[in-house]
Amino acid sequence: MPKVVDHEERRRGLAKALWQVAKARGMEAVSLREVAAEAGVSMGTVQHYFKTKDDMLLYALEFMNEENGKRVRERVLASADPQSPYEILHACLVEMLPMDEDSRTGLLIGIAYFVRALADPALGEVARRGWPNLRRFFTDMILQAQKAGDVPADLHAAHEADILLGLAEGLASQSLMGHHTPQEALTIATYRLDQLFTRVS
Amino acid sequence: MPKVVDHEERRRGLAKALWQVAKARGMEAVSLREVAAEAGVSMGTVQHYFKTKDDMLLYALEFMNEENGKRVRERVLASADPQSPYEILHACLVEMLPMDEDSRTGLLIGIAYFVRALADPALGEVARRGWPNLRRFFTDMILQAQKAGDVPADLHAAHEADILLGLAEGLASQSLMGHHTPQEALTIATYRLDQLFTRVS
Repeated sequence: MPKVVDHEERRRGLAKALWQVAKARGMEAVSLREVAAEAGVSMGTVQHYFKTKDDMLLYALEFMNEENGKRVRERVLASADPQSPYEILHACLVEMLPMDEDSRTGLLIGIAYFVRALADPALGEVARRGWPNLRRFFTDMILQAQKAGDVPADLHAAHEADILLGLAEGLASQSLMGHHTPQEALTIATYRLDQLFTRVS
Repeated sequence: MPKVVDHEERRRGLAKALWQVAKARGMEAVSLREVAAEAGVSMGTVQHYFKTKDDMLLYALEFMNEENGKRVRERVLASADPQSPYEILHACLVEMLPMDEDSRTGLLIGIAYFVRALADPALGEVARRGWPNLRRFFTDMILQAQKAGDVPADLHAAHEADILLGLAEGLASQSLMGHHTPQEALTIATYRLDQLFTRVS
């Protein structure tokens, strides 16, 4: 009987191998060859799943985003009020900062992809796919909080969402660069979120 | 009589050549060899001034920061109130976003250096030198505005400075990525600045 291969499982295994290589030896070490070695499979197997390094980086990024989404949901479920827009946005901000070795590696993979996308518009196109959803989600959370009276109704929800997302992105880079510790970055992001949520008198 | 060479002038010329190469053909094209060709000098001349590509990138970055500083001062002097912390901070935010081809190139050079610094702590050390001054400058502007009653006294000036700097950094990356147009990014940054400066009743 032929062996049944779960292709999605294989892909995920390769994404995890990429992760390990990036974590242990930095993004420069990431190549189809190194990922094959780490995963204990042949180059041909890797190439069966990913035609190029960019394909592989993108998949790893999407896999990472899914894992991040799971971690956000877990974090929110463990919070005092899992339905609260404040708790949900706070959990998202935590996930966007390099608070541990895994999220640091995730950010480095994201930056590697970002740099390649700057030089290749087609890659940028793909990388932009998730953005409108993220933005809409943040905006919806703020609108919901405005309806509940937790955020002032006169604030521009979409701009406030853009500020939180822009701030998280900037603080993440500045933390990687050593301008802030991750904890300091989280303090600043939380200060902004608290400000947004406490201006209702 | 031996020719007198202005070394600083030479270095600046090479930084401008690096700039041209990056603008015309992207950061991947930047090398000591390409910069020498662009500047119309020998490889040896370039190597006399810069031992490595990292040396050259760092100098180009510092040169760019100086030029940015000049542009900020010009922008402020041309504004309605050149002494106003609001005008000064706004001019800084404009310079930090990819509003034109030059600032876009400047940001790409910054990102190239950032990526190299992530893999090389010694480079990061050098790149971090300017940060405390920038942060102190933003904080001082906010403290000054608080004294004048233009920004509420109960706000944490250093956190507010970090928010503006983090936001500008994040919006700059997100604009390069095509998530926002540069004009949209500026609208968001200005919205935040206005918010900071209009909460005094």
